[in-house]
Amino acid sequence: MTGTRSHWLPDRWINHAKRPGVAYRAQINHNEMMQGGRLYRANVLHTPRPDRFEIVERGYVHVDAQGYVTGVYGELPAGLGECEVEDFGDTLLIPAMNDLHVHAPQYRNQGMAMDLELLPWLSTYTFPEEARYSDRRYAEVMYRRFVRDLWRHGTMRASIFATIHKETAELLATILDEAGMGGLIGVVGMDTGCPDNLRNSTEEVVNDTLSLIDHTSGMPLVSAIVTPRFVPSCSCHMLTELGKTAQRYRIPVQSHLSENQGEVALVRKLFPDSSCYGAVYDRFGLFGQTPTLMAHCCYTDGEELELMKKNHVFVVHCPISNCDLGSGIAPIRRFLDAGLPVALGSDMAGGHDLSLFRVMQSAIQMSKLLYARTEGEWSFLSLSEAFHLATKSGGAFFGKVGCFEPGYSFDALVIDDSELNRHDDGLAGSAYTVRQRMERYIYLGDDRQIVHRFCQGREITEPRLSDL
Amino acid sequence: MTGTRSHWLPDRWINHAKRPGVAYRAQINHNEMMQGGRLYRANVLHTPRPDRFEIVERGYVHVDAQGYVTGVYGELPAGLGECEVEDFGDTLLIPAMNDLHVHAPQYRNQGMAMDLELLPWLSTYTFPEEARYSDRRYAEVMYRRFVRDLWRHGTMRASIFATIHKETAELLATILDEAGMGGLIGVVGMDTGCPDNLRNSTEEVVNDTLSLIDHTSGMPLVSAIVTPRFVPSCSCHMLTELGKTAQRYRIPVQSHLSENQGEVALVRKLFPDSSCYGAVYDRFGLFGQTPTLMAHCCYTDGEELELMKKNHVFVVHCPISNCDLGSGIAPIRRFLDAGLPVALGSDMAGGHDLSLFRVMQSAIQMSKLLYARTEGEWSFLSLSEAFHLATKSGGAFFGKVGCFEPGYSFDALVIDDSELNRHDDGLAGSAYTVRQRMERYIYLGDDRQIVHRFCQGREITEPRLSDL
Repeated sequence: MTGTRSHWLPDRWINHAKRPGVAYRAQINHNEMMQGGRLYRANVLHTPRPDRFEIVERGYVHVDAQGYVTGVYGELPAGLGECEVEDFGDTLLIPAMNDLHVHAPQYRNQGMAMDLELLPWLSTYTFPEEARYSDRRYAEVMYRRFVRDLWRHGTMRASIFATIHKETAELLATILDEAGMGGLIGVVGMDTGCPDNLRNSTEEVVNDTLSLIDHTSGMPLVSAIVTPRFVPSCSCHMLTELGKTAQRYRIPVQSHLSENQGEVALVRKLFPDSSCYGAVYDRFGLFGQTPTLMAHCCYTDGEELELMKKNHVFVVHCPISNCDLGSGIAPIRRFLDAGLPVALGSDMAGGHDLSLFRVMQSAIQMSKLLYARTEGEWSFLSLSEAFHLATKSGGAFFGKVGCFEPGYSFDALVIDDSELNRHDDGLAGSAYTVRQRMERYIYLGDDRQIVHRFCQGREITEPRLSDL
Repeated sequence: MTGTRSHWLPDRWINHAKRPGVAYRAQINHNEMMQGGRLYRANVLHTPRPDRFEIVERGYVHVDAQGYVTGVYGELPAGLGECEVEDFGDTLLIPAMNDLHVHAPQYRNQGMAMDLELLPWLSTYTFPEEARYSDRRYAEVMYRRFVRDLWRHGTMRASIFATIHKETAELLATILDEAGMGGLIGVVGMDTGCPDNLRNSTEEVVNDTLSLIDHTSGMPLVSAIVTPRFVPSCSCHMLTELGKTAQRYRIPVQSHLSENQGEVALVRKLFPDSSCYGAVYDRFGLFGQTPTLMAHCCYTDGEELELMKKNHVFVVHCPISNCDLGSGIAPIRRFLDAGLPVALGSDMAGGHDLSLFRVMQSAIQMSKLLYARTEGEWSFLSLSEAFHLATKSGGAFFGKVGCFEPGYSFDALVIDDSELNRHDDGLAGSAYTVRQRMERYIYLGDDRQIVHRFCQGREITEPRLSDL
């Protein structure tokens, strides 16, 4: 039933990781790369490893003509005389944000309707809003706002739930592609426990997913992802066929896992012979048989954790959502200790905030509450660990994305934080270090300080809104 | 030792609740009040009671010449022909924010240095920074930035810890008074377990507090508050004399209580004969003998809770700080059920954010985590409850502050949230209600949307920064 299980080899999933850095790197040698391209100068920060920031003050990042980083330099590198240099002054140059779990059609509900927990919240607020996305005009207004807001907050790549509606899911892909941003978009499959106007058949969701693959085939950074809503809203037939589709077309999977105690109990009741919630996805070939994102994992433990590790399933940690919906706190330290891949997600509109910087804050805060609850046994996330989750760790799902090591896509933000630190002017001994400025931006900054955004080497300007 | 215990009668604490509304209301009859003054028109929202917002769409608030509200009206009230009307259009008109716990001299550390928990954090980051406030020039730059940022975030009144330095604490009072904003300011007392350059004697802190009372005597909205840092940093002699000072001069008290497990254990060791941490303050007359604010209370329970209730001690809930420092989650639902007065505090720089709107968010989120942990036994805070904490409940410490009922000080914010909701334009059936707009502002808004600020009836313009 689950099809052929293969080891998870990120570089081989070329469909979702379009133009992966590794494949590209093989085609061209270093000297050729250093000819041409561009140099960007600023205070460069990134996290090749989670345990600390690598910082080059007033350094240079060289980006080749295809949009890949060739290196970070403390001094102007030799042999780059032909290169244009763009000097961003005393700003921070950091990798762009990757949001690995977000519901585009909940845009209107952002920051409201948070008086219920997960299951009643879905039926009361979420489903009625998603039903509106059969209307192309409505979807265009909202999806353009959504993409503009991703851009505003410095998120250059996202893994996105659309709705059951193929036509508007394709529209979302077009909008994201036109903006020059990257992402995975899923037509949602749901045929159980949902209102009639939000129900699709197995045949529909499979065909619509294939149609989305076709629709995005010419898009360099946007592609399709198999998206069963979650176990309680899908029949076994739908789960079976979605698993087959993922494997046949070698495309990734996204869904929800162990978010809420009520939901976990419901799945246990629906599948009493499965050892855990994750094992249900696994039996249908939706749990790491192709690259897989599972959002939340608040109650993942024991066997489920082991299965995720074995199958290299990504945990997408959505701490703001987990607070806003009263779900609980995911044990991220345990996942990291076990070597699981972990990304961050806004889960808008379960979470009220699209900013991955706020998600980082929340991830650190939640880890500190677990630190308090375990009386210090579980260390809390450091700032560089949280930053790594939002950049390189999450970016890995898109290929070589999320840091400035050679071969990585130049997805970047330029942060002009001068207004946040102006009181240091002229006060002896009180200037912030670059590391402190990064921390202060993450905690105190917002979209006002993001002055340039790049995705795959291209500067991304503000996406246009609907003319409607 | 504890001096004379009296019942807590807010209206009689005239020193800290300067020009209280009740006293004022007794002097003048309704008709006289309605002559003159000003009318403000907008969508009016406030929370006279915590369980719901009172909303008057496109309503009027009448404010008399002394800055007190006389009433909220749905239609232009009769007999107000002489009154100027200021129409703010389709904005939200709400009470201003009250921050009942904030450390002004930690301004520079905001949003950084959060890799330690309370006790090592104090010695590593906080004390060295506070030592700089012996320098008047440094203090002026930083305190002016701090007051400007309170203003920016819509906080019109605050209860503030300064440092041990009298001269710069007085400077802070002057800056706040010049801005037209309200607050209580404390010269911090600490003589134990602190560096030599941050130690004052009992005589010094008592005299400096009296000096601050004198300094603020001509200020309509700013006064002094007795401020022992917390039990572990004060000798019995200092606590004794500060308790006596509070009662002799009838001024309020602020300190910290049961923030962190390590701190609670330390106090238990220091005072093994006291039944709880709060009982230590109580034996020194610093626990409700005059109006008292106790920040945090994460581990307050049983006898301590009963003592706070009996003495009408305010809990100041600082959820952002409690997360940032890994302290734990205060059981606010339990406090509210017991009838304790509860306010909100930013606790900057223990907390990274000065915005009380963000503190509201965090308070709701933390209550949802307790809801999850108690499997629904403890209901989470509703939006109106959180709003009530930041406005009327906290404002009560300053007198009649925090709502628009007759006799209350007109402390208000005008929120132009049009940019947050622009995608509703022209989409049939999708306009947000005023209540939803309020929720979305609290979750999604920031200082950009606050377009007018009032304190005691006066519009407060941006406080000037230092010329230095």
